[in-house]
Amino acid sequence: MRTLVAGGTVVTASDTVRANVLIDGERIAAVGELAGAAADRVIGAAGRYVIPGAIDAHTHLELATPNGVASDDFATGTAAAAWGGTTTIVDYAGHDYGEPVLAGLARWQAMAAGKACIDYGFHMMIKEVNGQVLADMAALAEAGVTSVKLFMAYPGVYMVDDGALYQALCRAGELGSLVALHAENGRVIETLIAASVSAGRTSPPYHSLSRPPALEGEATSRAITLAALAGTPVYIAHLSSAAALAAVRAARDTGLSVYAETCPQYLFLTEDELARPGVEGAKFVCSPPLRPAGHPQELWRGLRSGDLDVVATDHCPFTVAQKRQGEGDFTKIPNGLPGVEDRLTLVFQGTADGRLSLNRWVEVVATAPAKLFGLYPRKGTIAPGADADLVIFDPAAERTISEKTHHMNVDYSCYEGMRVRGTPETVMQRGRILVDNGTFHGKPGAGRYLHRSVPQV
Amino acid sequence: MRTLVAGGTVVTASDTVRANVLIDGERIAAVGELAGAAADRVIGAAGRYVIPGAIDAHTHLELATPNGVASDDFATGTAAAAWGGTTTIVDYAGHDYGEPVLAGLARWQAMAAGKACIDYGFHMMIKEVNGQVLADMAALAEAGVTSVKLFMAYPGVYMVDDGALYQALCRAGELGSLVALHAENGRVIETLIAASVSAGRTSPPYHSLSRPPALEGEATSRAITLAALAGTPVYIAHLSSAAALAAVRAARDTGLSVYAETCPQYLFLTEDELARPGVEGAKFVCSPPLRPAGHPQELWRGLRSGDLDVVATDHCPFTVAQKRQGEGDFTKIPNGLPGVEDRLTLVFQGTADGRLSLNRWVEVVATAPAKLFGLYPRKGTIAPGADADLVIFDPAAERTISEKTHHMNVDYSCYEGMRVRGTPETVMQRGRILVDNGTFHGKPGAGRYLHRSVPQV
Amino acid sequence: MRTLVAGGTVVTASDTVRANVLIDGERIAAVGELAGAAADRVIGAAGRYVIPGAIDAHTHLELATPNGVASDDFATGTAAAAWGGTTTIVDYAGHDYGEPVLAGLARWQAMAAGKACIDYGFHMMIKEVNGQVLADMAALAEAGVTSVKLFMAYPGVYMVDDGALYQALCRAGELGSLVALHAENGRVIETLIAASVSAGRTSPPYHSLSRPPALEGEATSRAITLAALAGTPVYIAHLSSAAALAAVRAARDTGLSVYAETCPQYLFLTEDELARPGVEGAKFVCSPPLRPAGHPQELWRGLRSGDLDVVATDHCPFTVAQKRQGEGDFTKIPNGLPGVEDRLTLVFQGTADGRLSLNRWVEVVATAPAKLFGLYPRKGTIAPGADADLVIFDPAAERTISEKTHHMNVDYSCYEGMRVRGTPETVMQRGRILVDNGTFHGKPGAGRYLHRSVPQV
Amino acid sequence: MRTLVAGGTVVTASDTVRANVLIDGERIAAVGELAGAAADRVIGAAGRYVIPGAIDAHTHLELATPNGVASDDFATGTAAAAWGGTTTIVDYAGHDYGEPVLAGLARWQAMAAGKACIDYGFHMMIKEVNGQVLADMAALAEAGVTSVKLFMAYPGVYMVDDGALYQALCRAGELGSLVALHAENGRVIETLIAASVSAGRTSPPYHSLSRPPALEGEATSRAITLAALAGTPVYIAHLSSAAALAAVRAARDTGLSVYAETCPQYLFLTEDELARPGVEGAKFVCSPPLRPAGHPQELWRGLRSGDLDVVATDHCPFTVAQKRQGEGDFTKIPNGLPGVEDRLTLVFQGTADGRLSLNRWVEVVATAPAKLFGLYPRKGTIAPGADADLVIFDPAAERTISEKTHHMNVDYSCYEGMRVRGTPETVMQRGRILVDNGTFHGKPGAGRYLHRSVPQV
Repeated sequence: MRTLVAGGTVVTASDTVRANVLIDGERIAAVGELAGAAADRVIGAAGRYVIPGAIDAHTHLELATPNGVASDDFATGTAAAAWGGTTTIVDYAGHDYGEPVLAGLARWQAMAAGKACIDYGFHMMIKEVNGQVLADMAALAEAGVTSVKLFMAYPGVYMVDDGALYQALCRAGELGSLVALHAENGRVIETLIAASVSAGRTSPPYHSLSRPPALEGEATSRAITLAALAGTPVYIAHLSSAAALAAVRAARDTGLSVYAETCPQYLFLTEDELARPGVEGAKFVCSPPLRPAGHPQELWRGLRSGDLDVVATDHCPFTVAQKRQGEGDFTKIPNGLPGVEDRLTLVFQGTADGRLSLNRWVEVVATAPAKLFGLYPRKGTIAPGADADLVIFDPAAERTISEKTHHMNVDYSCYEGMRVRGTPETVMQRGRILVDNGTFHGKPGAGRYLHRSVPQV
Repeated sequence: MRTLVAGGTVVTASDTVRANVLIDGERIAAVGELAGAAADRVIGAAGRYVIPGAIDAHTHLELATPNGVASDDFATGTAAAAWGGTTTIVDYAGHDYGEPVLAGLARWQAMAAGKACIDYGFHMMIKEVNGQVLADMAALAEAGVTSVKLFMAYPGVYMVDDGALYQALCRAGELGSLVALHAENGRVIETLIAASVSAGRTSPPYHSLSRPPALEGEATSRAITLAALAGTPVYIAHLSSAAALAAVRAARDTGLSVYAETCPQYLFLTEDELARPGVEGAKFVCSPPLRPAGHPQELWRGLRSGDLDVVATDHCPFTVAQKRQGEGDFTKIPNGLPGVEDRLTLVFQGTADGRLSLNRWVEVVATAPAKLFGLYPRKGTIAPGADADLVIFDPAAERTISEKTHHMNVDYSCYEGMRVRGTPETVMQRGRILVDNGTFHGKPGAGRYLHRSVPQV
Repeated sequence: MRTLVAGGTVVTASDTVRANVLIDGERIAAVGELAGAAADRVIGAAGRYVIPGAIDAHTHLELATPNGVASDDFATGTAAAAWGGTTTIVDYAGHDYGEPVLAGLARWQAMAAGKACIDYGFHMMIKEVNGQVLADMAALAEAGVTSVKLFMAYPGVYMVDDGALYQALCRAGELGSLVALHAENGRVIETLIAASVSAGRTSPPYHSLSRPPALEGEATSRAITLAALAGTPVYIAHLSSAAALAAVRAARDTGLSVYAETCPQYLFLTEDELARPGVEGAKFVCSPPLRPAGHPQELWRGLRSGDLDVVATDHCPFTVAQKRQGEGDFTKIPNGLPGVEDRLTLVFQGTADGRLSLNRWVEVVATAPAKLFGLYPRKGTIAPGADADLVIFDPAAERTISEKTHHMNVDYSCYEGMRVRGTPETVMQRGRILVDNGTFHGKPGAGRYLHRSVPQV
Repeated sequence: MRTLVAGGTVVTASDTVRANVLIDGERIAAVGELAGAAADRVIGAAGRYVIPGAIDAHTHLELATPNGVASDDFATGTAAAAWGGTTTIVDYAGHDYGEPVLAGLARWQAMAAGKACIDYGFHMMIKEVNGQVLADMAALAEAGVTSVKLFMAYPGVYMVDDGALYQALCRAGELGSLVALHAENGRVIETLIAASVSAGRTSPPYHSLSRPPALEGEATSRAITLAALAGTPVYIAHLSSAAALAAVRAARDTGLSVYAETCPQYLFLTEDELARPGVEGAKFVCSPPLRPAGHPQELWRGLRSGDLDVVATDHCPFTVAQKRQGEGDFTKIPNGLPGVEDRLTLVFQGTADGRLSLNRWVEVVATAPAKLFGLYPRKGTIAPGADADLVIFDPAAERTISEKTHHMNVDYSCYEGMRVRGTPETVMQRGRILVDNGTFHGKPGAGRYLHRSVPQV
């Protein structure tokens, strides 16, 4: 089957051109005028941007946390992603203490198989570093899991010490894998939380106050020092603050291969949201926390200048009922926000507002994560031979974000009532239409596991 | 006429894909598998990179300087450019004190017309800033000259004071034009030259010693301050030193729109060359001068990180006889080096050595100058609708640079005997072949004047 | 005659001790318990600080400016200084274009002789740099004028270009003299003033807006580059902005010998004062101008950290009538503020507020200028052998600054109505009492010319 | 008894004056001409510097380490200190896990009492932070121990985690005490050591290679972040590397109260010493380790600029036999170097070489530690009322450092054969002569415990 996406403006990480896109089966066959191309189907894209299907490099579907299980499973979460123009996710698989990481991966594979509506890959969250885990990192890479995540926060749950982190970095360097990090100083945060609780300061704003930006800056800087010592690249996940960005920028200025990801919530929201009354504040609890005013504009600047590479979501939704468990005690609020559906449009809002170029928009939501996580050139661009994952994006549309209309399995939106420009009108994966003008054509199980190559760093 | 460039690897600023390129007339029609494309001609590109024709944003053909006229005219210089894979130049037009800039432009148009073998545009070098010149900057932009150059060096020849520079920056900001700068502190250099001469220090190394890196760093920093005050972007031409790069990097870190260009001579050569005996040292005299060891690797790092945007040549060749005029007195040596033919291959050497990615190579020699100087998307990329300016580049070839084999009208090479990887095998402009396997098919007058749009900054 | 200052707390740049001070003739004989010291006179200092007579390293008495002559002459200005605890000034002598600097110095010597109530030295303001002037810098140093000032601002009046500045720095380096600078970019300011005037923006606030902080930062940075190239120290006079301080700090961080002076007006006042109605705004016109809010606290931080060395006044008073000449046209307002009387107390206010230690207070108003300008150990400390220039300072006193009570020959105060802590109760020079409990005992002509040694840098 | 130190040049942290010093009993009575002073004894100091007795703020006498007990006890160590012009030490007391810190202090008090030849105080090394320890920090301060040290290195022996460190900083802030830190990243070092040993790399150079400068820089930066968050000053002990200095400088540039100490070994020696054959290399093993060439000159620059405040020794000597225990396994070499006797002269060598002013020499070896550790004005200066701790220093003397002539209880010198300028000719404490022209007059038990006030920070 051959499909012609006709009349649109094709936007990639570096080009913006009027062109048609010819799809043959699951792949892109050509980009061009293609006047005489014989197509079985023509999809009109006049007045639209035709962009690569977006890639969300950071999701947590069905994740079990100390305070509850994330409310989107691989079926609902990937369907919502598709609605929003995201055709690939890289979810975070995990393991338990003592459980081999490959066993953990198998559990996650089982969770996703038969449910995912879009293509997916996995990172692996490593809770402990020892000889077995280090050895298994090779098996992970062979299984297509070429990135692992370690935590400098959450003592007793995920945190590893600096020696373990350094060993993992060295090992990743040998394998060509990439280490992603949760960079906050867990031990000081633990102390601040204990002090806050013992002082009776337990409402949601104290969640943010217990995790000050300086501690993300510190951990980011420390991680970079360790990576430089190990001679390996490093990837800072969900960077939220100007302090952490400054650490990344300083490192890049000296030529280090440091990469960083931020999330829409850090670009659009501030800690002021946590001061909303009752459970309203709890809805905005995530880690790293939302930051004071001023930080978002710094992050936009970092995205523009290239010091931030990727916008992912850290999608980890909890229902209002789940969030309510922590009413009166912020330490009981499950940490995480929904967002997998809104990312593409939210970042485009930055483009509409003149903060990012069109090309940079595509780069941060699709091309850069594809390259950094070993999916390129199969994913992340519009070019011959690439998977025909496309979004036909109407930049003129205006709409209002709302939990009433979104498709994530969560009963609130962090952006409720926000008016945004642009909408992913048609979403295709490997040549098939997932979403078209408000109708969902995807189906659970259609998504394929992506065996990722080594990162291009 | 339809041409298919078949079997190559198409490399753009962001993509690297196996694809065929279909050319219809002067434009690129499609990029893709194009299995059934009916073509009048097929050019095999297997094992080759297919890249956009390179753009040299800084040349001085036939330039009259105080110590002589540059030895390449628009015929010989553009032919040599084509031999090297460069299909577009932006040359620097000028005017005399008291002469309207439009009259100067007309002189340059006349010089180029009928001679240029490749497409060309002009910047305008402004010697003095007054009401008429400021007014004429609008006419320049309307004539397609959307960038002007001012000099912080060469008192009495080109230098303007900071007040004039500031006015020009403000005016460029109104017009959307871009100001390019020669950033060296002319007054202090004048003093240093006088001191050197009066002390009898007149051999070529004293040329470099009279223009220390700190004075380029200072002027660069000053220019950036003035541009920031004027609220306009600025472009630092022929940046040569770590000090100047540090000024650019610091500015970009604060979000300023500062762009910079370096040249192959600053990436590969050092001031040690000036110590060669006799006229040999004089061959390497240019301004800014070649720098001490250490600077080149900093510049490579800047290219990689994105703090340097463009590699151009500042091509301004003088014959050995011309250089010899300054034997025994460096102030009499005409300033400038040949290079328009070697740039593409020299920067590719950086890629071969692992300093730059393939995509970044294409970006700095073609895409970035196209965008910064208002030539994109007509030039600078491989995409439907763009001019079919292509280079089929053989990355496996090895050859030796030599004045014996180069095509520039100058009887020496700065890189004599240097062994390099890669060669531009076939060079096309607007669908026509200029160079193919060692045969030149271009002809004087075939190059067209490029009416440039406002820069994408 | 022997005098014992008894019972006070002696404060120097590094020490704070309870001690008596014995004066023998014009010199300090001893500091100590001195139980049995035979003294002709005992001055009680219980509850008081005994500090070295303060040194104002920057005054302009009787200075002729384009818009008027400063209203304090050497008699009134030095008397006011003494009232405020300042026992030494270093005034800025000058010369006219074409006039030998030694002739200028002779004119200033003549102006001061017979009038000065306190000891005085001179810097020389150099308007032009040529062979004669460079030669005469040696004669100046021999005459005790071991510092010269050059201007990067005021084109046509004082400004020299960078080549001239560089030559003066080199020459000063040979002589061990110190170059002080007015660091603002005169050419851009000239352009901004012209633009402001032609747009009809002529009220006092446009004075400040025509001289933005970035242009002081730029000039400071440029001056430092030139000094580093010349291998000489440099002294930034009347530093007013965070931008200039940042340039100084960066230089000192790399080990350069860069010194800087700020003034009370930059520590206490902001550009908001210029928005006062009518002539009220004109009263606050000086150059560099008062800066936006935020700058003063940065300067206090610089004083504390050691990145600023000296607080001087740039005392250059004009009467309200003189200031009124510029009503409706800020370019006609004579530039300068009164302040020689208030400095010691104003900086002490910083100590009272916890911004500076007691020792640092003494250092910035007395010891540092003494060392930097070749007056130490004769001036600037309390130690055996030093001139018995002392201030007995009552830290507990409170008073209100007002033109009604001050002694400067000017009919307004920049600090009118400001409540301050501390007062110089008794002021002595070379053992004689100049001021005591509200009575002035000094007399014109008693002040001696100070033949200064080379700076301790 | 009254003593007159006559004819010398008195040097303090800010002054250099010809003056006599009158001592009455244990205190300084006066500084001055003191022509008629009746003295029981006159000590000639013509041609000599008279400076305050030096203070060594970092010693480890009789310290039990995992690989042996330091070879100097309070008798031999303090006698050696006196020989070198040091009249006060602040030694590091400690406690065992589970042992109350006050019990540890009592043990150290018992060790010192009856043995110390010079005055002494204690810091407390805290191994664990809990409610009791935090409470006891108040009792320590009341007992005159107003500074505590925590370790970011040595896991299992001294290291505390960041949460504990943060709590200690907060507590110190409440008390006005000062936290000193051993700033190296212990966990990564532990990993590097294990890797080194398992690879068979066990000779002394691997000691240094296992503790790279970047890990001191990281820990220093982290400590500063925590102190800033706690709102308290912090003191970096034995800073050894440019990386750590850069962290301190950056913090001070932003106005933070960060203080730092370096040691003579880091100013004069490099890691090259560890490559000496056999036990020779082991003699130079200390932590932080000696650094590569280049670091010392950065530290000298930091001392000069004020970014380093104190030079102390970290004196912790081990005999050659003790060092030899680690032959073939650097992890068994006791860590520490002798130096308490050589510090004053070694730093003076910096003054003789033009690296530091005379005043700065006195400041870093005496005045700054006195102020930072609550001993001023009793110690650290020459002023009326201060303890008569004086050194009469002959700047013209030349001598050779050697274990043959030194008085420390250790059979080697790190500076063996080094030729130095200057010698402490006469050393006095509280008016009594400890050392005079090569004869020791001190005696064990004559030193007094110093109850220290809160630091002046």
